[in-house]
Amino acid sequence: MSKRIVIALGGNALGSNLPEQMIAVKRACTAIADMIEQGYEVVLGHGNGPQVGMLKLAMDELAIHHPEQYTVTPLSVCVAMSQGYIGYDLQNALREELRDRGLKNSVSTIITQILVDANDPAFDNPSKPIGRFLTNKEAAVELEAGHTVVEDTGRGWRRVVASPKPQRIIEIGAIRALLEAGQVVITGGGGGIPVIEHGNHLRGTAAVVDKDAAAALTAAELDADFLVILTAVEKVAINYGKLDQKWLDSMTADEARKYLAEGQFAPGSMQPKVEAAVAFAESGPGRRTLITLLEKARDGLEGRTGTIITA
Amino acid sequence: MSKRIVIALGGNALGSNLPEQMIAVKRACTAIADMIEQGYEVVLGHGNGPQVGMLKLAMDELAIHHPEQYTVTPLSVCVAMSQGYIGYDLQNALREELRDRGLKNSVSTIITQILVDANDPAFDNPSKPIGRFLTNKEAAVELEAGHTVVEDTGRGWRRVVASPKPQRIIEIGAIRALLEAGQVVITGGGGGIPVIEHGNHLRGTAAVVDKDAAAALTAAELDADFLVILTAVEKVAINYGKLDQKWLDSMTADEARKYLAEGQFAPGSMQPKVEAAVAFAESGPGRRTLITLLEKARDGLEGRTGTIITA
Repeated sequence: MSKRIVIALGGNALGSNLPEQMIAVKRACTAIADMIEQGYEVVLGHGNGPQVGMLKLAMDELAIHHPEQYTVTPLSVCVAMSQGYIGYDLQNALREELRDRGLKNSVSTIITQILVDANDPAFDNPSKPIGRFLTNKEAAVELEAGHTVVEDTGRGWRRVVASPKPQRIIEIGAIRALLEAGQVVITGGGGGIPVIEHGNHLRGTAAVVDKDAAAALTAAELDADFLVILTAVEKVAINYGKLDQKWLDSMTADEARKYLAEGQFAPGSMQPKVEAAVAFAESGPGRRTLITLLEKARDGLEGRTGTIITA
Repeated sequence: MSKRIVIALGGNALGSNLPEQMIAVKRACTAIADMIEQGYEVVLGHGNGPQVGMLKLAMDELAIHHPEQYTVTPLSVCVAMSQGYIGYDLQNALREELRDRGLKNSVSTIITQILVDANDPAFDNPSKPIGRFLTNKEAAVELEAGHTVVEDTGRGWRRVVASPKPQRIIEIGAIRALLEAGQVVITGGGGGIPVIEHGNHLRGTAAVVDKDAAAALTAAELDADFLVILTAVEKVAINYGKLDQKWLDSMTADEARKYLAEGQFAPGSMQPKVEAAVAFAESGPGRRTLITLLEKARDGLEGRTGTIITA
């Protein structure tokens, strides 16, 4: 039986506008096709920072210039739009790369919702900036709507939202069915569309689930062998940028917890990746995470580079 | 074995902005849940006219107001965005309606590309208006870019694109796998993202595939028993609006062809629906199409109303 991996690809690895995305996606798909060629069953998660920022800005401009017809579009809806946009591009580029290598795998994209807890403490402390910079007047309107804004020195205000812990992938059954039919599955774009359960209703909420945390949960729910987090460095380091900087080939979840407690990893950068690796390692036996560069994924899976996190 | 149906839901049945869509989707999902409760395997296709219009306008505003960062977004990309947007809303509302009835079916959305032929004669005669009204100056820019524009008397210019015949559903394998796993599948939003094959590459093209034609092809490829086209009238009529108007309970594909040749059905309205029904009837034995009102779908499937088209 082939091994199953869940890949988390950074939103910045996809470029920040359409022409950039076209080139970036091609590069990403070369690395992903390598892993499929190695015989892995692949589930592909991805970020959406620049893309959802673009869509939120576009929908805001729409509401500003056509107020008679359109109101503000919620962030959750913009995430759904970004999943369609990025999924289309990724599935297409990956299909082509696979065909160019004589591989016949099909690739498909599932619109993915992710359950979060309305009582998650993250909602008391929104910290993730979204959308464009706001004027004083616009910031006041946001405050009146019950949103949180923070000042970014000299550049104006920005709205910030919570980044709650993901609880459950709503479409996990669909993802599993596609995998079992031999599909490469693109899912959880932007960390998934965050929803809160109200009885039978799922309500979209203005939050952003960390895409690495979402990928770790997807990997756990799919009983994957490997979580592969692709980033801008080849290995994880401790004492980063200091004289005693040390690149790590591996660490246990316990070691990782210790380093996290020491503040070894940058918040919003390496820290959530290591946290996701710990969560996956502790979700079941034999579960490993590889953190490495996009271009080194294949070598990393063969044990030649990257940092491996185990229980 | 349960019977399989493919439903084509009009884009206008989804409302033309977010608040309207919320209400409209709830109404549509009541009718669709009825069919699922009747025991049918359901694949749901839908239009996207107002939604892709909104997205195209938003992306145009983005390019106008932030030209340093963003260029024009192609129509095919806007279709992909609209599939994410509408799919999220539909899968959520349908899930809730099913749960409210004690049904446990999962619902998922597949981003769907549809192959069209670069040599389709429709490309020589673009006729489907898209996007906003243009000024003389903007129309000139479109012409320079090789696009076709037509004047809409008194209201300015509009870009028009081709509506080619759909040839193949790229993601049909994923749709089939989901159906076989018991999922309700949302697919082919807006008639699918139209793509042209260039070797292994699928290139998005500025065209709009008729959503009823796309649903008919999906139904044929899935070997469905029924194609259900939901529209604004309970039955198809000949001599519509005349003294000898006659509502039809059924017609054969041959009869339908004759009526089509006589120009009995309005272009862009009933005509493409009847054409889709004929295409499905002639794609294989025992294939039937029901054309009726959203609210009458259940009665129609039980033979009590609507128009049935058979081979």
